Amino acid sequence: MTTDPSAPAVDPAPAVDLVIRRVTVLAPTRRPVAAYPDLAPDDAARPGPATFLADQAIGVVGSVIAWIRPDADLTAADLGAARVVDAPGRVAVPGLINTHSHSSMTYFRGSAEDVPTASWFNDHIWPMEVNLTDRDVLLGARLAVAEMLLGGVTTVADHYFSMTQIARAVDEGGMRAVLAETYFSSQGAEGLERSAAFAAEHDGAAGGRITTMLGPHAVYTVDDADLVRTAELARSIGVRSHVHAAETMHQTESSLARRGATPIQVLHDTGMLEAGALIAHGTGIVESDLAWLTPYADRVGVACCAKVYQKHTHTSTPIRLLHDAGIAVGIGTDGCASNNTLDMFESVRATALVQKAASRDATWLTSSHALDLLTRQSAQAIGREHDLGALAPGYTADIVLIDPWKPHLQPMNDLAAALVLSIRASDVETVIVDGRIVVDGGRLVDTDLDALMTEMNARLPGLTDRSHGSTIQTYAP
Amino acid sequence: MTTDPSAPAVDPAPAVDLVIRRVTVLAPTRRPVAAYPDLAPDDAARPGPATFLADQAIGVVGSVIAWIRPDADLTAADLGAARVVDAPGRVAVPGLINTHSHSSMTYFRGSAEDVPTASWFNDHIWPMEVNLTDRDVLLGARLAVAEMLLGGVTTVADHYFSMTQIARAVDEGGMRAVLAETYFSSQGAEGLERSAAFAAEHDGAAGGRITTMLGPHAVYTVDDADLVRTAELARSIGVRSHVHAAETMHQTESSLARRGATPIQVLHDTGMLEAGALIAHGTGIVESDLAWLTPYADRVGVACCAKVYQKHTHTSTPIRLLHDAGIAVGIGTDGCASNNTLDMFESVRATALVQKAASRDATWLTSSHALDLLTRQSAQAIGREHDLGALAPGYTADIVLIDPWKPHLQPMNDLAAALVLSIRASDVETVIVDGRIVVDGGRLVDTDLDALMTEMNARLPGLTDRSHGSTIQTYAP
Repeated sequence: MTTDPSAPAVDPAPAVDLVIRRVTVLAPTRRPVAAYPDLAPDDAARPGPATFLADQAIGVVGSVIAWIRPDADLTAADLGAARVVDAPGRVAVPGLINTHSHSSMTYFRGSAEDVPTASWFNDHIWPMEVNLTDRDVLLGARLAVAEMLLGGVTTVADHYFSMTQIARAVDEGGMRAVLAETYFSSQGAEGLERSAAFAAEHDGAAGGRITTMLGPHAVYTVDDADLVRTAELARSIGVRSHVHAAETMHQTESSLARRGATPIQVLHDTGMLEAGALIAHGTGIVESDLAWLTPYADRVGVACCAKVYQKHTHTSTPIRLLHDAGIAVGIGTDGCASNNTLDMFESVRATALVQKAASRDATWLTSSHALDLLTRQSAQAIGREHDLGALAPGYTADIVLIDPWKPHLQPMNDLAAALVLSIRASDVETVIVDGRIVVDGGRLVDTDLDALMTEMNARLPGLTDRSHGSTIQTYAP
Repeated sequence: MTTDPSAPAVDPAPAVDLVIRRVTVLAPTRRPVAAYPDLAPDDAARPGPATFLADQAIGVVGSVIAWIRPDADLTAADLGAARVVDAPGRVAVPGLINTHSHSSMTYFRGSAEDVPTASWFNDHIWPMEVNLTDRDVLLGARLAVAEMLLGGVTTVADHYFSMTQIARAVDEGGMRAVLAETYFSSQGAEGLERSAAFAAEHDGAAGGRITTMLGPHAVYTVDDADLVRTAELARSIGVRSHVHAAETMHQTESSLARRGATPIQVLHDTGMLEAGALIAHGTGIVESDLAWLTPYADRVGVACCAKVYQKHTHTSTPIRLLHDAGIAVGIGTDGCASNNTLDMFESVRATALVQKAASRDATWLTSSHALDLLTRQSAQAIGREHDLGALAPGYTADIVLIDPWKPHLQPMNDLAAALVLSIRASDVETVIVDGRIVVDGGRLVDTDLDALMTEMNARLPGLTDRSHGSTIQTYAP
């Protein structure tokens, strides 16, 4: 018998490049049913108990998860010539998505402590930011990338100045990011134009690891005409906008008093919500705002950074209200000048605890629900629910392996609770971004932290000098 | 020239056994002025900025700190034949004091999640505790000792059943503890007698590392006659009592409605405060309670476990009220069934953040003040301000070295903020208890965690079984 050379070649299953073996996989909340045919569909409206599948193997082709199956079913053909990460008992979760940060502000960690919000901006941060050079922004972002990768954060939605420097740090560090160049109306037309140019030029950069948004600073620093123009540009470029809005209840009250509209209504009326928006904080979102938000639930998300609201004495994002209205809430850290870390496990824990306390309902915001916020809802909040925030075939291979065999996590009565209420970022052992291992054995594969931290410390006196008397902006929302 | 053998021998400075070199020392808040003659006296009423002294050396003789001086001033005679720990740039802080825990409840970590307080007791914890054997208590305590030592906790004030087992784990692990055997009035006279016998027999055990208190469970589970008898016994043995009181505002309201007295007044009227008391939680302490507490400010302290109050939706300990009245507030974790960790850095951080948010005052409870709660006030709360909670000559050599050269702690604008708002327990590198190194390079010197955690996990099904239908108590405060 001979083979007919004219017959079409059978397309074999592609050989995998990487196989992660013997891990416990967090099945996606709101899961794509086809990927997990043996699991009951999850209730998107109220996530049930998190599901973990023991002794699984994950096959990766290039930057994409090809399959997840019981390790016992693997054959030699499955492994082929793939690199194998044998991680018995480790817990595999999707790479974490920091839905709101200002990476380079690692430089200002601990530089504006124990002060109210207005003083934080006017007496500390904005006068110090006058000193920032491109190199400062680059180094601050490099340190942020290091801290985040080591803590299992594979994607950051960033909003800052000199964004090409942050893009460089993200590219070099092997991380994923959604970058938005900050602008204020006080900068004139140039600010918005630069933000739009950055978004147009860098969308898809770093082999697709970098995507972009427009970066209007806030509803109180960008005027309505500029917001209208921003929404138009966002639609034409095909990106969303990342914007601070209703950061505090005071801002909402102030906006109502000044102009009779909440910050969220302003976003609605200027077309910003229709064009798609990632809203930072939203602690001042009120029930009447749901009328503006819900028509755009498919393209609007809110980033909650709960630790920061405690420190600055604000109420927290009304997650229950947003949840019941079907608006995605992602978890974020905010910048290090307000948070003091870029630790997403700390952020989701603070969120769960603050929400329980504020609602006076211990049964609300379970650890399983918190994991849904941390993974699927964070992906949705940045518009990436189709390829990030879940471990499933066809999803991008951003994977974090956690070592649960630690005294502060054992014995293991409840893995979801352990991942939300007991874990430390230092329990992260392996981090994979886009199919590439960037953290191995709890260490960065290719970053010289010593030189970086030495240079940053030497720069502190100049960077934090406020004697020049100038400032970026005045905070008076 | 000959030496006159009849002349009294000059007592030389004793040779040191251990020298820790090149560390940055947290100077004591409320510091003993004689120990730091070059530093201005600290204001006990409102701790100022934390003071850190760079490039110091700490000399230890036996279990006591002999001297702290600039490393540059050391001579060969200072070092003698001492063991040297060279720790350049590490931050030395006093061993942390967990002022309220139930160590063996590590076994129940994650076993009673997302439920209100009454259900936590009645449906979960008290039915499960029926299953506890002495060995369970021993293993649970061993794991707790491991978790605490690795996180820089050198002393725990513990309140539980089968306390001889916990004493054994503390002794073996090289930790320090203040142990109180729990009892309820429902146990009849036997409960109190056993608690008193434990206190009398074990005070000063483990070479002095174990001291004791009496352990009445709570004001709502021990009747007034037993509290009166407890106070009498405490005075005769020479110990204080460790007791849950005003755990929630609901308990205070319930006590007022039932008997016209707050739980704190009950402690006062039964002589418990006069005999000395460590009050667990006190979130239901109200302003009128100050009249009962302040006369005994020299022997009464309150343990605050802020994370637990968030999770169980209680208000938090009124630290500002207690602070202004001069009542010591220590930091605690509570047990792992409510907290999910025994991480004191997490506890003090939660305390600082919750207090800021609750007071709506971002300038309140600064990181320096939080360090005072974590060190000196925690020592005072357990009656050990004379020998624990400070790095100073004459104080016990319980010393923790922290590695600040980590991306989540750098650059270093503010060390106090780093220690409260950025640190992780995994940043602890070296732990010394009573002059002996028990954690070295972030690892326990002599504990087999694998065997311990394996045995504990195998026991979980039996331990958490509630099908027997019995319970320890009924929660109805």
